[in-house]
Amino acid sequence: MKQHQETLEVRTAGRGCTDLTAELRRIVRASGVCVGLATVFCAHTSASLLIQENADPAVLRDLLQWFARLAPDGDPRYEHDAEGPDDMAAHLRGAITRSSESVPIVDGALALGTWQALYLVEHRTSAHRRRVVVHVQGD
Amino acid sequence: MKQHQETLEVRTAGRGCTDLTAELRRIVRASGVCVGLATVFCAHTSASLLIQENADPAVLRDLLQWFARLAPDGDPRYEHDAEGPDDMAAHLRGAITRSSESVPIVDGALALGTWQALYLVEHRTSAHRRRVVVHVQGD
Amino acid sequence: MKQHQETLEVRTAGRGCTDLTAELRRIVRASGVCVGLATVFCAHTSASLLIQENADPAVLRDLLQWFARLAPDGDPRYEHDAEGPDDMAAHLRGAITRSSESVPIVDGALALGTWQALYLVEHRTSAHRRRVVVHVQGD
Repeated sequence: MKQHQETLEVRTAGRGCTDLTAELRRIVRASGVCVGLATVFCAHTSASLLIQENADPAVLRDLLQWFARLAPDGDPRYEHDAEGPDDMAAHLRGAITRSSESVPIVDGALALGTWQALYLVEHRTSAHRRRVVVHVQGD
Repeated sequence: MKQHQETLEVRTAGRGCTDLTAELRRIVRASGVCVGLATVFCAHTSASLLIQENADPAVLRDLLQWFARLAPDGDPRYEHDAEGPDDMAAHLRGAITRSSESVPIVDGALALGTWQALYLVEHRTSAHRRRVVVHVQGD
Repeated sequence: MKQHQETLEVRTAGRGCTDLTAELRRIVRASGVCVGLATVFCAHTSASLLIQENADPAVLRDLLQWFARLAPDGDPRYEHDAEGPDDMAAHLRGAITRSSESVPIVDGALALGTWQALYLVEHRTSAHRRRVVVHVQGD
């Protein structure tokens, strides 16, 4: 069994989804692992991970709009607003999406479905640098 | 350390929960792993995984009803409706449940609690074939 | 590759968040793993895991208030209320947070971000004993 780790610095342009799938595929290839497991970890609580459809970009637009209705910016009931009206909304959206995702590696490739991509979701309105750690293990 | 992988094809009968726990236990036994980790991955974005109560079926009914209120079918605010009124609702319900779950294997058995089962949740109204990949590793 | 497992019994004081980060760090140190993966699993469906901000306690208060609006106690539409008005609400809040989380171990330390803590979230109003299994593997 071998292991391989890489840390990605992802520059986001504010609220939205950054597709990390190509980077993840590159890391799996670099690891030389044929059968194993890739785990992705987001080291932030106002950005998160999500595996979602990669075909119609309207899915991601609808998703972000729905998050905006579910956990609106600037809700006067929020106590925490240290960094502005999008601060607490970002934490809430992060709480119901993922900090970590694990994807099996089968025959040297990620077992992602045809329509699946792994996204980093930036929940803050302004641009950020986000740290994502990828851990690969297997034979 | 050894590894064992199996891909399940799960036939769903439309919206609802399919209990995968018995299959998962069978795979762990087949792996011969006594101490390790089992990771389950759902290769779809309109179906997902969820560990929930296995005792009272009303819990799963309430859960599906709640999803229906949270992310209703046919909301006119959805832009994406390529496959019908349940299409975007399915993606949203998938986004807040799980693509992957990892369960430790302790003394040759999954560390699931007494009342826990692992379900594949079909979020589309029609029947589908879903691919679920199980990765087991350990000693 | 080595493995190390520990089972924690967490006594909760009713609804709220218990920070498990120090315990998790202790277990990673005890494992002697320098490069690897730590997986945390919650063996319950009315308590769950969440990686959230560790700085301003108002974030956790806002989070619990938001859960209360999203999945209210005693909603007359719930069919399942065997253990009281907080029973089904607890399952729903558990469903959208985590049963398992995996955090890479880099240079002998968890790759958690500066502001991240891993919490056990108790969703029931009364005190409970919760079982959390930690699995560490690596070199």
